Amino acid sequence: MKLGLLTAAFGELSLDEVAAWAAGNGYEMLEVACWPSGAGEKRRYAGVTHIDVDALDADAVRATLERHGVSISSLAYYPNNLHPDDAHREEVNAHLRKVIDAAEVLGVGIVGTFVGNDKDRPLPENLDRFRRIWPPLVSYAGERGVKIAIENCPMIFSYDEWPGGNNLAWSPAIWDEMFTAIPDENFGLNLDPSHLVWLMIDYERAVYDYGDRIFHAHAKDLEVRRDGLYRHGTLSGGIGWQVPRIPGLGDVDWSRFVAALYAVGYDHVLSVEHEDRRFEGAPELVERGFVIARETLRPLIA
Amino acid sequence: MKLGLLTAAFGELSLDEVAAWAAGNGYEMLEVACWPSGAGEKRRYAGVTHIDVDALDADAVRATLERHGVSISSLAYYPNNLHPDDAHREEVNAHLRKVIDAAEVLGVGIVGTFVGNDKDRPLPENLDRFRRIWPPLVSYAGERGVKIAIENCPMIFSYDEWPGGNNLAWSPAIWDEMFTAIPDENFGLNLDPSHLVWLMIDYERAVYDYGDRIFHAHAKDLEVRRDGLYRHGTLSGGIGWQVPRIPGLGDVDWSRFVAALYAVGYDHVLSVEHEDRRFEGAPELVERGFVIARETLRPLIA
Amino acid sequence: MKLGLLTAAFGELSLDEVAAWAAGNGYEMLEVACWPSGAGEKRRYAGVTHIDVDALDADAVRATLERHGVSISSLAYYPNNLHPDDAHREEVNAHLRKVIDAAEVLGVGIVGTFVGNDKDRPLPENLDRFRRIWPPLVSYAGERGVKIAIENCPMIFSYDEWPGGNNLAWSPAIWDEMFTAIPDENFGLNLDPSHLVWLMIDYERAVYDYGDRIFHAHAKDLEVRRDGLYRHGTLSGGIGWQVPRIPGLGDVDWSRFVAALYAVGYDHVLSVEHEDRRFEGAPELVERGFVIARETLRPLIA
Amino acid sequence: MKLGLLTAAFGELSLDEVAAWAAGNGYEMLEVACWPSGAGEKRRYAGVTHIDVDALDADAVRATLERHGVSISSLAYYPNNLHPDDAHREEVNAHLRKVIDAAEVLGVGIVGTFVGNDKDRPLPENLDRFRRIWPPLVSYAGERGVKIAIENCPMIFSYDEWPGGNNLAWSPAIWDEMFTAIPDENFGLNLDPSHLVWLMIDYERAVYDYGDRIFHAHAKDLEVRRDGLYRHGTLSGGIGWQVPRIPGLGDVDWSRFVAALYAVGYDHVLSVEHEDRRFEGAPELVERGFVIARETLRPLIA
Amino acid sequence: MKLGLLTAAFGELSLDEVAAWAAGNGYEMLEVACWPSGAGEKRRYAGVTHIDVDALDADAVRATLERHGVSISSLAYYPNNLHPDDAHREEVNAHLRKVIDAAEVLGVGIVGTFVGNDKDRPLPENLDRFRRIWPPLVSYAGERGVKIAIENCPMIFSYDEWPGGNNLAWSPAIWDEMFTAIPDENFGLNLDPSHLVWLMIDYERAVYDYGDRIFHAHAKDLEVRRDGLYRHGTLSGGIGWQVPRIPGLGDVDWSRFVAALYAVGYDHVLSVEHEDRRFEGAPELVERGFVIARETLRPLIA
Amino acid sequence: MKLGLLTAAFGELSLDEVAAWAAGNGYEMLEVACWPSGAGEKRRYAGVTHIDVDALDADAVRATLERHGVSISSLAYYPNNLHPDDAHREEVNAHLRKVIDAAEVLGVGIVGTFVGNDKDRPLPENLDRFRRIWPPLVSYAGERGVKIAIENCPMIFSYDEWPGGNNLAWSPAIWDEMFTAIPDENFGLNLDPSHLVWLMIDYERAVYDYGDRIFHAHAKDLEVRRDGLYRHGTLSGGIGWQVPRIPGLGDVDWSRFVAALYAVGYDHVLSVEHEDRRFEGAPELVERGFVIARETLRPLIA
Repeated sequence: MKLGLLTAAFGELSLDEVAAWAAGNGYEMLEVACWPSGAGEKRRYAGVTHIDVDALDADAVRATLERHGVSISSLAYYPNNLHPDDAHREEVNAHLRKVIDAAEVLGVGIVGTFVGNDKDRPLPENLDRFRRIWPPLVSYAGERGVKIAIENCPMIFSYDEWPGGNNLAWSPAIWDEMFTAIPDENFGLNLDPSHLVWLMIDYERAVYDYGDRIFHAHAKDLEVRRDGLYRHGTLSGGIGWQVPRIPGLGDVDWSRFVAALYAVGYDHVLSVEHEDRRFEGAPELVERGFVIARETLRPLIA
Repeated sequence: MKLGLLTAAFGELSLDEVAAWAAGNGYEMLEVACWPSGAGEKRRYAGVTHIDVDALDADAVRATLERHGVSISSLAYYPNNLHPDDAHREEVNAHLRKVIDAAEVLGVGIVGTFVGNDKDRPLPENLDRFRRIWPPLVSYAGERGVKIAIENCPMIFSYDEWPGGNNLAWSPAIWDEMFTAIPDENFGLNLDPSHLVWLMIDYERAVYDYGDRIFHAHAKDLEVRRDGLYRHGTLSGGIGWQVPRIPGLGDVDWSRFVAALYAVGYDHVLSVEHEDRRFEGAPELVERGFVIARETLRPLIA
Repeated sequence: MKLGLLTAAFGELSLDEVAAWAAGNGYEMLEVACWPSGAGEKRRYAGVTHIDVDALDADAVRATLERHGVSISSLAYYPNNLHPDDAHREEVNAHLRKVIDAAEVLGVGIVGTFVGNDKDRPLPENLDRFRRIWPPLVSYAGERGVKIAIENCPMIFSYDEWPGGNNLAWSPAIWDEMFTAIPDENFGLNLDPSHLVWLMIDYERAVYDYGDRIFHAHAKDLEVRRDGLYRHGTLSGGIGWQVPRIPGLGDVDWSRFVAALYAVGYDHVLSVEHEDRRFEGAPELVERGFVIARETLRPLIA
Repeated sequence: MKLGLLTAAFGELSLDEVAAWAAGNGYEMLEVACWPSGAGEKRRYAGVTHIDVDALDADAVRATLERHGVSISSLAYYPNNLHPDDAHREEVNAHLRKVIDAAEVLGVGIVGTFVGNDKDRPLPENLDRFRRIWPPLVSYAGERGVKIAIENCPMIFSYDEWPGGNNLAWSPAIWDEMFTAIPDENFGLNLDPSHLVWLMIDYERAVYDYGDRIFHAHAKDLEVRRDGLYRHGTLSGGIGWQVPRIPGLGDVDWSRFVAALYAVGYDHVLSVEHEDRRFEGAPELVERGFVIARETLRPLIA
Repeated sequence: MKLGLLTAAFGELSLDEVAAWAAGNGYEMLEVACWPSGAGEKRRYAGVTHIDVDALDADAVRATLERHGVSISSLAYYPNNLHPDDAHREEVNAHLRKVIDAAEVLGVGIVGTFVGNDKDRPLPENLDRFRRIWPPLVSYAGERGVKIAIENCPMIFSYDEWPGGNNLAWSPAIWDEMFTAIPDENFGLNLDPSHLVWLMIDYERAVYDYGDRIFHAHAKDLEVRRDGLYRHGTLSGGIGWQVPRIPGLGDVDWSRFVAALYAVGYDHVLSVEHEDRRFEGAPELVERGFVIARETLRPLIA
Repeated sequence: MKLGLLTAAFGELSLDEVAAWAAGNGYEMLEVACWPSGAGEKRRYAGVTHIDVDALDADAVRATLERHGVSISSLAYYPNNLHPDDAHREEVNAHLRKVIDAAEVLGVGIVGTFVGNDKDRPLPENLDRFRRIWPPLVSYAGERGVKIAIENCPMIFSYDEWPGGNNLAWSPAIWDEMFTAIPDENFGLNLDPSHLVWLMIDYERAVYDYGDRIFHAHAKDLEVRRDGLYRHGTLSGGIGWQVPRIPGLGDVDWSRFVAALYAVGYDHVLSVEHEDRRFEGAPELVERGFVIARETLRPLIA
């Protein structure tokens, strides 16, 4: 297994700078942010363009990475692929196809993304929309030898995303619906245990149950603030009590998670996703966060 | 403390019949269903009229209860008092006032109800609506010497009530907002620990924190189905994993709940609310449920 | 559900005496011991003949039970139906058939027994023997409208039964093999949670997983002596640390077990099996044990 | 085993009245308070004289008990037998001898008392004093066929008893010192699990380790108030977080405690000691407490 | 955050030698022992003088530290500032003032010390003495721009410090009294989670509750020996069951402690306090202890 | 303490190659496999000959180790020393004596081995055989200044070793029998916590109870697969649910184990035993396993 990081937290740096820092600090792979350049979303940790797939210079990308001795674990573009506004949705679907094209050109086997969601409709209706909209996207990737890895983040953090969040792919029951609708072998998960913590879904069991669908793994951590849970309860959708943390500072037992990954034969990357507000705001803080993450995870990876 | 029951589960029986069965089976108090007669809601456990407040015959009610040696712990009418449809809302608010009138006439100090909710709006907006609509209702009751006891049920069971449920009064953070907005001494809780179980809110701490606001207590139980929680996660709002059970067959530790009630000086009623689908459908089944509840709770009550 | 008891603990008493005591002490059903008379085994709690199926007087049995107002939950004969000595095995198989005949005549729908085992052969070999020997026994019962309820006791208590015990039917994995080999609808379990405690098999999950195969349920309890487990470990096969107890004095959480039984629709009998050495030796002691069991279980049964 | 109660909670009633209430409410034995009449201590639950051993009328006592069908489990006199004031100590020692005399005359085999303590001296010094003062007391009882049962209460509740409390017999390490110093067979424990709860001493293990020294058992319960423990910590000596409760309303798992008592062969009495402030102040409240205790313990006793 | 160590464990070494070892072994800060030279206490880990404040050569100290590239996290002087002997107390108070002076001169913002205690008086009396004696000490420091960080160690290890210990500042309830009496912004805590472990006070909650009062943090670990707790109970004040250990070998969950520190914005030092008897006696053993501590804590610090 | 490894996992490499890899990767000691050359057993992880004791060239061995700067923690030969076939048993006993001889010559104080077992006989019979066969082996070693360290592995993995396994030394109760029969000071344990995990024996307590008998310690880890335990239960002897893992990927809490070893004064070696099937098959995989083990254990060792 390799240790990697999602480049989105380094929004101010160029790919070259990110690769340099990563290589110099014990990271071996990059999950490269590929949002559209120029028109980035304003959402935290989104809208970052470390590879501009609209103007892809594959040789330059390869040269940059080789110079630093790191490789790409996947291309990352996490929009709302089921956005209720059709025009917006088609735009992000189109950009997703370009990211898939780039993955093919770069020889990167995996693109990570969200299924998306219309947050105001109940789950059954969104599943219907998923069944209509997603099959051609997965086929498009399959025809190009690219795997689609869906991250299991509900994308709900505040009343802005309430009630349903912007990505429906958050539970085993839903994954079953997804894989029944699209059984293609190139359709799977970018499994992030942190969301499962506050959803109170056993992430170790999830690894055993969905082992052959895990294409990529995120290392984000999360703390359930007990006093917040008492005050707000599970029905708040995590608002008031789920707090993203750097791996090592949260409730994920990384030993059990990684042990399960090895047990099911997963041997690709553990890619640190940095969303801890205590280590944001200045590059030095972001780097400190990645250092703690590396110290936590490195001993489990060989 | 006394053992009581909410009469709504005996929708087919008259008040006389309910009182007879209760008295003969170890129950000392009745929480009497007072929905409008004739036009009952279709919701399970609602729409029952054991006292018709539109045609109240207080002497007959008193005679019936005295004949069986039971008394009334509260009048029960649980509609959506913040229904988004104003006409409907005013109708149920009006009926609530009649129930309050009846409580005054009957010398029953407490009316139990829901705050209500517009399930499609986020919590902050509903709290605003609460602050507008509820103060006159509480004042109305206060002027008549009647306490309003709000049950802490989120009223979400399926996608019909998704996403916000039909009663916003489900967490300590929300209770704080409610009691800040309406500090009147006659405004409090009909505390039901079963909802707190799946909300993962510590019900024992809640008793200690809100002791002086607990006017009435429900004894409903609830089981968290572990496999369902794994498959659906907390974000489903309990759908797929929270199952109402008869007290004694669920996850509530009644010893701790009742011990806490005694500790804060609560000494009114523990009123069994029967919503276990395994003990429904025939009067004999409903009675079996109440018998198990009695056997569970009776030892703790003196 | 009804509360019952296995009559074997009252080896000194007649059926009439057992029925009288049971009826007078809150028990509604009897699981009647039907070992061959005259030639009873010497094993503790076996070899008791409360109904002699070799000389069945069905009218007398019925009259006795009606006189005391109790009924039969099942006929009980628990020998080693896979005994390695063929002659002995055929003898006990033959007696089992007579018990089945008696069940048909008496209108009792269930016979409880053991699958048996050759304790010195490994499990796979015993499963082969099971597949050869058991199908005709189940068919024989099926043709007579009688269900076979296999108790899940490993029958290992000391080095006399070491290593494999005298009944192979002790785990979900083995039950799957059994029900795959014999899918007949009249073949199921007499589920006893106490053995699952020391086998560290989740009995609540077992009820949910095998709900439609549970024909009868035993209420025996068991205590894991922690110091004994430390000294001997799981590999001792429970020797030195598993101690049968009266229900209420052991580690079974009866509330969870019975709640699960109700949840899967089981509504027949909870039959107390008394094997607590602290309440043996004198009829008065045996009765004390059954009284504690009744006080423990009665509140959960209605 | 029998269910009993310590009469001290009924300080206002006569022995006849206590016996009447006990017999009418499911209690079979009395642990009779024998403080000196007239000069009772002012301490809560002490200073009660239900049998006046200075003016013992044994026939009258026997007649009273027989009339109500209850018997005496032990005579109770719990002073500070190691009081630092020698004159006071000799006075209470002398009265203890009279209680022993009374036990002999009444044919009651057990006297329950405290070892006592000089709260201001460290444990080793108090153990020295114990070794000097106690042997003749135990011998005196032994010569009269009476067992001395020491209750394991530290007698610390407030700064009045700080730091060492008024009874040193509170831990297994101390019991070992005591039984080493006085190995007499008539010297043992009146084991009360409630104190062990806040001392965080495993009461179940204590029963197994000291089984042959348990002459009498108290049923008092206790709740560790979690918020109080957070605020004050173990070093406060329980002040601020240990709260006596009625059996059934506290943290003792009575099933495990009683199961262990049966396992070691203890079969005398479970004597309810009532010190729950929520059920004091009026006889009706005291009685309610004893009713809850009975409902909790009765099912475990036969 | 930085990793530091309290120099007191290196009593045989000079400041230069300690700084050299620390810098060469991954430690970045020193909490420098400043007991009076020549007349050190005999207590373990006290009486060490790495900076002699009676003969302060600030330039030499600065040069030494700069040479090794380490800095000072605080000056350390932990006497009994509420000693019952007034002369002794005034002497240590006076030396504390000198340490404060030295901190000002050296530009070190923090002095760590104990509140002290008269171990033989109850807490309320000691709080009164605190309210009289401490305000001028805190003001003295405040006027010099120095923070006083009180360590939360009860200073009770044996009967020599029994019953009250030599430092009253051991619980949240007491901290509240302290900060109410002295609300000055330069008065806070040197928080050590190890003592909270045996006091059974939730150290994670303590960090959240007292975040703005945490000026310095100790990394000492502690093991609760379970058999010792069984034998002695909480009332022994930890004697017989609390064992100081090197961080990583005890019961503190350092991930949770450090995560909470980051969450409340604490970002100064984690200073290893070495009191593990298994790693004492020879410099080589002390160093091994600090190496294990560094390996445990380093991954969490960036 | 030192970090070491058992060389058997490197069956393809020479002692020189193993020493080189170990020294280059943070390992300081070797537990050297000494099975008979040429006729190795076929069992996994056995039959390896890194020192050929039949043709011992002590100088060459010493030179090899010195060249790489590693030393020998013990010689390893783990056959069935109580094999039921006498000829085979005498052969392995004879080879064990040769390994002891080699240990003496090489100045290695410890030989690690199994007691052995006749898997088809019950424990009491095997203990009898142990008492006959083992005393001369221990004396032989004692006369040569060599300690015998028995590993506590039950040697049961499949039905091939069912029911009793090939090494009886697996529980504290058995160790007591062994050390009673052979109290010689050179007879002790090579304690491996991994087996205690699935035997559900508290390994931390075992270290405290048998501290003076621990001559050597293995670092193997083990995972209890929860679903497997549910399906097969403890009586399967671990088959179906116990899975050997690399230290750091299993259920052993290494911090508690190593802390207990330090506490009892053990300060020799923690020797990694590599039996994780996920890290086998290619040298590169075996090395990755040892790297993860080192990263897990190294921080605890100094």
